[in-house]
Amino acid sequence: MNANKEIVNALIEFRNERDWAQFHNSKDLAIALSIEANELLELFLWKNADDVNKDKLKDELADVFSFAFLIAEKFDLDVKQIILDKIKINADKYPIDKAKGTAKKYDEL
Amino acid sequence: MNANKEIVNALIEFRNERDWAQFHNSKDLAIALSIEANELLELFLWKNADDVNKDKLKDELADVFSFAFLIAEKFDLDVKQIILDKIKINADKYPIDKAKGTAKKYDEL
Amino acid sequence: MNANKEIVNALIEFRNERDWAQFHNSKDLAIALSIEANELLELFLWKNADDVNKDKLKDELADVFSFAFLIAEKFDLDVKQIILDKIKINADKYPIDKAKGTAKKYDEL
Amino acid sequence: MNANKEIVNALIEFRNERDWAQFHNSKDLAIALSIEANELLELFLWKNADDVNKDKLKDELADVFSFAFLIAEKFDLDVKQIILDKIKINADKYPIDKAKGTAKKYDEL
Repeated sequence: MNANKEIVNALIEFRNERDWAQFHNSKDLAIALSIEANELLELFLWKNADDVNKDKLKDELADVFSFAFLIAEKFDLDVKQIILDKIKINADKYPIDKAKGTAKKYDEL
Repeated sequence: MNANKEIVNALIEFRNERDWAQFHNSKDLAIALSIEANELLELFLWKNADDVNKDKLKDELADVFSFAFLIAEKFDLDVKQIILDKIKINADKYPIDKAKGTAKKYDEL
Repeated sequence: MNANKEIVNALIEFRNERDWAQFHNSKDLAIALSIEANELLELFLWKNADDVNKDKLKDELADVFSFAFLIAEKFDLDVKQIILDKIKINADKYPIDKAKGTAKKYDEL
Repeated sequence: MNANKEIVNALIEFRNERDWAQFHNSKDLAIALSIEANELLELFLWKNADDVNKDKLKDELADVFSFAFLIAEKFDLDVKQIILDKIKINADKYPIDKAKGTAKKYDEL
């Protein structure tokens, strides 16, 4: 079994033991993802760019991944595949010769 | 090579071809993650809970995962491990007999 | 003195007493705004649309407004004026005859 | 009429002309607020702390304020009052002698 299937199984088992599937519609999962991303972001608030507590970051990042995997599971998406697909799209939006060394958005290149 | 190592390698290759590592401090990666989570969330705005365009969702979810993996890579974190660790912590915060069937936060159980 | 000037004065006085201006660059204020918006959003997580604790909402909404006013102050923006300006822009993007009764985004009308 | 009452009236008029009250439950307004806060935040992504386009910032900040005022209106909250109330609460959480010159959270002071 691959790592991501193991992750999803562990998350679903945890959820089912608590009878929480009833709350996990995709809109609330997306809300939860935004909230967790902001709890992660809070670790950096008022601080220099790489000044962060790694233990807290590990915890918050795990929460972000958990909701992201639950959304992927709900829509039967393969995480590796959707990322590789998106990298191809981004390769067109950000061609190397134009995008190299600049942080501009694709519509400003 | 496991799936998540392949994902990270593809993301890092895409980044290095564009010389973008210079922008990817962990604070900005966390900002990017929040922004992408909110682009995903926007797909659900003003809509019923599971009424969403799956193609757009796939795209936005891929962006969320990409930044989450880049943060994991920066801190040398194993995604499966941090999620399994967090599930253990959550199992203590949300014991089955108290948490079953309720969406209350742990401090209200 | 108008209400919004009073608000800004109170926020700035609170900040200066604590010598916090040094942390309040506009990027971190924008981060704080997103974090507070998500603390407000968390009050609605896993719940029906209007099922929220009004006392907690009042608190979190005050935090959102506080950072929004601090950003407005930093850029010397008049809150009433920028909203009235934006309503005019939105009136063009969402003409009544096309937008009436639909939640579609302007680029889908 | 005070400035904030004028703002709310203009927002409500714009909404009613488009028959959008039906979409504006408080949960979706809170989602919209988070999305707009992140569109504002995106203006700072990959950039130095105060390097931002003021015209774009004005636009995005107006959107943030608009949804914040619509939430305040829905719960019949006076914006000045809730901010002044919150400043009092924060004055207790962040006493000057402990909080001066530090960006630590109240539970770490």
